[in-house]
Amino acid sequence: MNACDESVAAATERTRAARLPAAPLAADAPQQPLSEGSSLERSSLDYWLLSKLRSLLGNPPVEFAVRSGTRVAPGGAPIARVTFASRATLASILADPWLRFGDAYSDGRVSIEGDLVSLLESVYHASGMGGGKRASLLRRAGGALRRRHLNSFAASRDNIHHHYDIGNDFYALWLGRSMAYTCAYYPTPAATLDEAQFAKMDHVCRKLRLKAGESVVEAGCGWGTLALHMARHYGVRVRAFNISHQQIVYARERAAREGLAGLVEYVEDDYRNVTGHYDAFVSVGMLEHVGLANYPALGQIAHRCLGRRGRGLIHSIGRNHPATLQPWIEKRIFPGAYPPSLGEMMRIFEPWNLSILDVENLRLHYAQTLRHWLGLYEAASERVREMFDERFVRMWRLYLAGSVAAFTTGTLQLFQVLFAPGENNDIAWTRAHLYTR
Amino acid sequence: MNACDESVAAATERTRAARLPAAPLAADAPQQPLSEGSSLERSSLDYWLLSKLRSLLGNPPVEFAVRSGTRVAPGGAPIARVTFASRATLASILADPWLRFGDAYSDGRVSIEGDLVSLLESVYHASGMGGGKRASLLRRAGGALRRRHLNSFAASRDNIHHHYDIGNDFYALWLGRSMAYTCAYYPTPAATLDEAQFAKMDHVCRKLRLKAGESVVEAGCGWGTLALHMARHYGVRVRAFNISHQQIVYARERAAREGLAGLVEYVEDDYRNVTGHYDAFVSVGMLEHVGLANYPALGQIAHRCLGRRGRGLIHSIGRNHPATLQPWIEKRIFPGAYPPSLGEMMRIFEPWNLSILDVENLRLHYAQTLRHWLGLYEAASERVREMFDERFVRMWRLYLAGSVAAFTTGTLQLFQVLFAPGENNDIAWTRAHLYTR
Repeated sequence: MNACDESVAAATERTRAARLPAAPLAADAPQQPLSEGSSLERSSLDYWLLSKLRSLLGNPPVEFAVRSGTRVAPGGAPIARVTFASRATLASILADPWLRFGDAYSDGRVSIEGDLVSLLESVYHASGMGGGKRASLLRRAGGALRRRHLNSFAASRDNIHHHYDIGNDFYALWLGRSMAYTCAYYPTPAATLDEAQFAKMDHVCRKLRLKAGESVVEAGCGWGTLALHMARHYGVRVRAFNISHQQIVYARERAAREGLAGLVEYVEDDYRNVTGHYDAFVSVGMLEHVGLANYPALGQIAHRCLGRRGRGLIHSIGRNHPATLQPWIEKRIFPGAYPPSLGEMMRIFEPWNLSILDVENLRLHYAQTLRHWLGLYEAASERVREMFDERFVRMWRLYLAGSVAAFTTGTLQLFQVLFAPGENNDIAWTRAHLYTR
Repeated sequence: MNACDESVAAATERTRAARLPAAPLAADAPQQPLSEGSSLERSSLDYWLLSKLRSLLGNPPVEFAVRSGTRVAPGGAPIARVTFASRATLASILADPWLRFGDAYSDGRVSIEGDLVSLLESVYHASGMGGGKRASLLRRAGGALRRRHLNSFAASRDNIHHHYDIGNDFYALWLGRSMAYTCAYYPTPAATLDEAQFAKMDHVCRKLRLKAGESVVEAGCGWGTLALHMARHYGVRVRAFNISHQQIVYARERAAREGLAGLVEYVEDDYRNVTGHYDAFVSVGMLEHVGLANYPALGQIAHRCLGRRGRGLIHSIGRNHPATLQPWIEKRIFPGAYPPSLGEMMRIFEPWNLSILDVENLRLHYAQTLRHWLGLYEAASERVREMFDERFVRMWRLYLAGSVAAFTTGTLQLFQVLFAPGENNDIAWTRAHLYTR
């Protein structure tokens, strides 16, 4: 365990102690059996609303309460307790829980005792967000919403600005040394965040079989970490595109500082303006922002960049089946974002005879990455409060914890898709080379 | 090189010497420059027809001739020479080359000098069957045809009978010891066919992480090879389904002979009648016969068999994009067959929240497998002629050689898709376990 990981573990402990008094919950249960049927409680409107909400969520093993005292609870020991500040808050959430719970939690109108991730996991499981019987209804509702995501050049710039331009210093607090804001790859679950981010970049480079002197184009380069890794460890030249101004500024400074500015060029422009021919096309964590309607255009760019040779890799959050993004996440965290199913991702490749060589699902690695980020985030929460405010602290805590839950419950997937032009026979014979050191 | 491989190499040499006189081709070229514009030839109708055919095929580097003497040839040295017995044959093929060339070759109305596989590869490349600019036209034509493949129970039985019930003795001549009629997995390109078939079965079992005592259902079990491998080497119980009567009889005898009848049950029935719960669902080389319309039903069966646990694997020939099967192959070799794109394959999984864990494309391994089969087939061609007739010998030669070309040119793919119920977190942490011995 390195210094970074010690701080994660300590922070996680601290957070739990501060936010989540496990003892009262455990102590409550034996004294007052939390049955759903006490006549005193049944009479109240609050009780009816709480029961309605609990039922709407598929009756997760969670206690729901209003601050004034009324509560409904599962038969067994609850995983967590959710307390609404008032009946008005409760009623508002009941009308649209997937959107309004997040805002109410952020504002402090909802408080949570117990582990936030476990709570969210239990709700995801019970409500079928993980894909159970209720999921098909949500899926059907998804079609109309998805068509909105046309993501013009201007809209893309606004959307990206909303999330990525809120301050490099903020992200530096909890992303670890790599400043990589995408799923890491843990050779073993015990790997540290920094080790896993390094291993992810190596995994990508090995899949692409990069060789010294080759040229790479990167669509959506974040703070430039992967481009630097490819240049430093594989000796390739990289042109890396991004429309986040803050990220590009950061990346350019970093490349200059690390003496790699001669190999890596950061271009502040939209992926749709990529030109030139390259040996490899790579995009890690951009597809979520592309929008379904633009998938064939993205494929055309990869096709144009590679011609009849070369290799490509797209790494993206995905789904087991088409579904809209959780509406609060889309509204507050990632406007315009959409994680596609693997079938939807094929719209990138199939029109251009791009051949899928390898797909790897790393969803449990993303859960682990997010646990590490959440630990670092909690450890830095005072600093975040100073930079922004309490509402922001809670909003991003919910986003990170909810993301852990989404990956552990299978609500979200992480697909790494390796591809090559259909005519290219210079492809790896097996994948054994990825696993030999 | 083992005994089997020596026979392959020897047979390949023999076949080449018998069918493909390389010398005349090479000798012809310098004496008479094969320009397309000699005035003597241009005048003839044969020349016009030959030129038309060559152009229709995208002008491959192949010489086309009519037996009476007229020929058209590429500027450079031709890869092969195709000679039509008569103008009638040529005109008939010109009207529908993708369907009629195969029949004319089988009947001996077309003869070929040069390497058959190289010839077909060059035609696939030039005509865009590999997915180039001409492919989109073929794709558009595909939709209507594909909708025919409803594959009722009765139609499936007829289709399977057509191909798989023509005699176990016939297949035993060229499939190698394993009697596995699906893409092998070559740890290195130098592996023998038998080694590669063993490695393929092990690769599948490792992907499925089979443990002793578990239960497996297999949809479409061929001659029973994989089921026996799983039982013998992994200690699992297997129920294996197949509607080919001859294959089931063979498989049952083999299980009894090898003392594995207690672990492996072969069921002569349609995959749609699979019942029960299992730890793993596997289907290797059946999906090609399922028909697009039945994909959601196939997924439902996997979903029903696995519940919220377990793992599944489907191994199938596929495409980079939707396209119909080569029409002669569909008419003469595989009625009712259809190799799906990966996007189309997702119709199996997405409705049932089955999570794709891993996709591996093994198309070059299928080309290698087919080269080995073709070598053994040629070595046994006298025996095949005795069992059937010369027409059959040529028909199956063309099918096997054309399949090599389809995989080397990227016209066909081979997808191994590993999946699990979306709720299942008991999945492999990485894929490293597949590559450690």
